Formats: sequence, structure tokens, C-alpha cells
Amino acid sequence: MPAESDFVDLLRALAGHPAARGLLDDAAVLEIGGRTLVLTHDMLVEGVHYLPDDPPGDVAWKLVAVNLSDLGAKGARPLGALLGYTLAGDTAWDAAFVEGLYTALAAFEIPLLGGDTVSAGAAGPRVLALTAIGEAHGPAPSRSGAAAGDHLWVTGTIGDAGAGLRALRGELPPDPALVESYRTPRTRVEIGPDLAPLVTAMMDVSDGLLIDSARLARASGVAIEIELEAIPLSAALVRTLGDSRDSRLGAATAGDDYELLFTASPGRGIELLDIADRSGIPVNRIGVVGRGAGLHLTEGGRPVPLPPRLGWEHR
Amino acid sequence: MPAESDFVDLLRALAGHPAARGLLDDAAVLEIGGRTLVLTHDMLVEGVHYLPDDPPGDVAWKLVAVNLSDLGAKGARPLGALLGYTLAGDTAWDAAFVEGLYTALAAFEIPLLGGDTVSAGAAGPRVLALTAIGEAHGPAPSRSGAAAGDHLWVTGTIGDAGAGLRALRGELPPDPALVESYRTPRTRVEIGPDLAPLVTAMMDVSDGLLIDSARLARASGVAIEIELEAIPLSAALVRTLGDSRDSRLGAATAGDDYELLFTASPGRGIELLDIADRSGIPVNRIGVVGRGAGLHLTEGGRPVPLPPRLGWEHR
Repeated sequence: MPAESDFVDLLRALAGHPAARGLLDDAAVLEIGGRTLVLTHDMLVEGVHYLPDDPPGDVAWKLVAVNLSDLGAKGARPLGALLGYTLAGDTAWDAAFVEGLYTALAAFEIPLLGGDTVSAGAAGPRVLALTAIGEAHGPAPSRSGAAAGDHLWVTGTIGDAGAGLRALRGELPPDPALVESYRTPRTRVEIGPDLAPLVTAMMDVSDGLLIDSARLARASGVAIEIELEAIPLSAALVRTLGDSRDSRLGAATAGDDYELLFTASPGRGIELLDIADRSGIPVNRIGVVGRGAGLHLTEGGRPVPLPPRLGWEHR
Repeated sequence: MPAESDFVDLLRALAGHPAARGLLDDAAVLEIGGRTLVLTHDMLVEGVHYLPDDPPGDVAWKLVAVNLSDLGAKGARPLGALLGYTLAGDTAWDAAFVEGLYTALAAFEIPLLGGDTVSAGAAGPRVLALTAIGEAHGPAPSRSGAAAGDHLWVTGTIGDAGAGLRALRGELPPDPALVESYRTPRTRVEIGPDLAPLVTAMMDVSDGLLIDSARLARASGVAIEIELEAIPLSAALVRTLGDSRDSRLGAATAGDDYELLFTASPGRGIELLDIADRSGIPVNRIGVVGRGAGLHLTEGGRPVPLPPRLGWEHR
């Protein structure tokens, strides 16, 4: 398999502009006329990011959600979106996709501004793309601001989408809440702007809590220690998989959560919990930032070895 | 084949925001904080928009050019680009593409700001996407402002890329200048901002001079009459195809020109020719705008029937 990271390394030479943030962040952050625009472009590939028999309307929702999640992680409110769509000769699928796109864009109150539609035939997997543009009215947190002494927080619960994918593959009983988390992920774009002024670093969890935490640690030049028992799990996940070290490690490496992961100084704790109260979106402290490097796990205060795979590497 | 226009009709219901321009324009035009941002997203599909054995660096150039052409048509100067790239397992192709991307971005002095890279396997045709963002410092001309009495103008020469494609397919002798027009099209993004304040409507010629002129006429609610003998042809094209009614009709329906097509009141003629002199990019008056509807062709002042195919309809 080709290494996506090698290719991105090649591209990095073309991305010297400060707005590109070295291609190390969730989105580009472009200052223009005293305004802060945030631009992101995320693609979904059939069979990689969604299952071939997922309902087309749900695929449209996910396409919008994964892009808005990146805006939320930079504290931006969405302004609009451009769609990149490849027609593959299935007009019923296309029509259902547009209906789902309508639902998703209406839910997040963002207009479709443009894009491109091309005919690509039915030979390969479907490739769908969205560009989302947003505006941050305050700071647009990067991944690189975490400092020793900060606490590590995450919104919502972790692992539901991954368990939903396993359920759809027949590996687990089909819990509707878990399947919904996989097919139509929540996105935390609505509280990103409230969190942004309080955090030192923020990103979304797309490839797995552990791998994304390791990336945040590397970008910030710090160590991150996650308390395994502090990772928030949903009732649906515990009902299906139990609450053990294995189920927690599975949840933390599963990906597709689209929750916000952020660091903040300990003094911000009450303000962060206030945001959770007001929004109804839970935020939980799951670890601490320290000097050094790398990701570390503990359970009951004692070190736990990292699993061999921290999340999705190339997709 | 699925009808791209039917799909875009479905999408139009989602695009009520004024920035979307009803999905009838080359790009979205978003006013923010007194600034005018122009956003476009164009895709290239292997076998549809380029040939499978075109050099990857040339494909990268074309991807940049087709997007910048849309910015130029709205009078915008480019600010940056986001790349949507599908890895298909050919690392040599990928590396050559990045080299070409570097050349193109450097030539137009625009930074890569971000994007997404995904693995899609080698089963289907390669699909490449770019989002370009620019800023118009004056008006951003639409397609709908042409008025009866205006003159119709076009930059550069018409039909070279189409002849280049035919040469690559073995249908014509392989003239290097024509092949270059197909593989690495010029773009007029540099004079778009100079033309914008003088024009009543502007768009780029991507699907064919005739079909794009017909679209401009429809969007503006006017008739357009093109003088066949006024269509500017290159020496390379005339050398290869001669200068006949047939060769002119072929050039005007071939597509991939990426020239700027625009209307202006007759009083603007000298200013427009001044821009041509200063930039070294020819602009030629090729017709007039009248009351009524539709596209009309003349030769020596006499009507010529429209060819059955005006250009590319769905791609």
C-alpha cells in the first residue's frame, strides 16, 4: 500500500505559507482583512470511510460531519461548503445522497456554495469530497500549543463508531445507537467556538483517541498521559463490549469518533464544565500533559503498555 | 450515462445562498467583512479530462490551471489552494504529480494550504480535485450581466487544446504547440482582475466557445451572435487544420481552451485593447449581444446554421 504520510511529506514542501500550518493541522487558517477563515477539504472513499451498503443519505451526513468536525476543532463557525461529486451511474443513489445532503446542511445551517460534478463510471470505489469554509471569531487553536501541566479533555464518548462498524460487519450484536454513531456521527462544531478561547491545543478525534493524542503530543513537543479508566464510554458500548481494559483499549483505538480533543490549563476546568452544562455535550478530563515526549497510558495510577496499533495510520 | 445537469438541478435546491449564484456561475462569490472571496472546486477524471498517458506533471498543471481559470473569470487573484488526492498505488506517478504541482503553484505564486489524501486503490479512473480560493479587489463579474448592444470578446486563440487532443489520439499530425495547449493550458487568471471592472459578464471557455457562449446568453437573457471569421485561431491550428468553415466550427466546439469570454459595452473597446497591449495577451471582438435569446452564427454577414453539437455537455 502506498504511504499517505510519504506523499504528504512531499506536499509539505509546497505548503510554506503560514495558513497551511505545515499541513500538520486539521484545517488551513487564513487571516484576511482582520478576519480568520478556516478551510478544510475531507474526502470519503467507499469501503475505506464508509461501507458500500451504508444508506446514501447517511454517507452525505458523514461527509458533512467530518468536514465540520475540522472546523469545530479550530473554533470556527461554518459559512458554506463546496461539493466534489463523482457520478457513478446510479441515479437513485445520487438522489438519496442529495436528500441526505439537504438534511445535513439544514441541520448545521450551512449553504452549499458550489463545487463540481463529474462522471467517473462505476469501475472504482466512489470518492466523495467536500470543502468547508468557516470563520473563527476568536483564536483558531492549533495542535501544537499544549504545555506541561495542562489537562487533556475530550467531548462526548469514545469508541461508539468503531463498535458500530464492528456491528455492521457482523462481529458484534447490532446495537442501533452504535450503528448510528458510525453512520451519522455527531459533530461538535457547535461548541468548538466556545472551547477555543479556553484551550491551549485542539483537534478532532478521527483516527482513534490514542493515535490522535500521540499526534497532539508530537506537534506540541510534550508527553501526554491518558488514564484508561477516565475515557468516557457510552452505555451502549459498555452493554455490548463490557467495561474492561480490552474494551477501553479497543474504544481508544477505533477511530471515527469526531469528538474534540483538547488541552487546557488546570484553572480552566470550571469554565469547561460550564460549557458542557450549557450545551448538554459532556466534556471529560482524561489525562495530563507533561514534559518529555510520547503517549503514556495508566490504569489505577499504574502504567499500562501501549497497544501495538494506536488507530488508523493511512486513510 | 447519468445526466450531470439533472444532478446539479437537484443540488440547486440546497444552494439558495447568494454566494452560490444559483450554481450557474464558474465559482462562488462570498462577501465577508467588506472583502470579496471567490471559491472554486474543479475535478479532473482520468480518461475524461486528461489522457491516461499524459505526463503526471502536466496533469497537475492542468488541475491548477482549470481552477485558476475560474478565479480569473471572476476577476479574482488567487490566495491559495487545497488538494484532494487519491493514491492509487503508483508512487512514481504520485512523485511526478507533486513535482508538477510545485511547478504550477510556483508559476502562479499560490501556496498549497491543505487538503486531503486518501487511498482509493487502482480499480477506477484517477480522480483529482483542487479547491482554489481567491480575492476580487473589484467587482466579480457574473455570467448574467450581458446587455443588448454589448460586444462579445475572447482572450487568446480558440481550438488549440481540442486539436491537441485529436493529435494525441492519432487523428491529426502531432503539433507540439497544440499538444501543449491540451496538456498544460494557459490560464488568463493574470488579466481577469484588469478586465473585471470593464466587462458586463465574464466566464471561462472550458466546454467549447459555442456552448459556453450559449450559456452566457441564457444566463443574461439575451441573444449572442458570433462572427465565425472573427474567432481567433493560432498559426499552429491553421497549419494543421486549415482555415475553413469546418475548421472554425471544430475549434469553436472543441473545449479545454480556458480562455476568458466576456461582454462589454462598445465604449470599452480601447481600454480592453490597452489591457491586451500591456499584458501581451490578445483580446478579440468576436460578436455582439442582442435582444432575444439563443446563439447565432454568421459568416460574411450571413447566417450559418449551428452545428448539432456546441461543445461538451456533461463532464
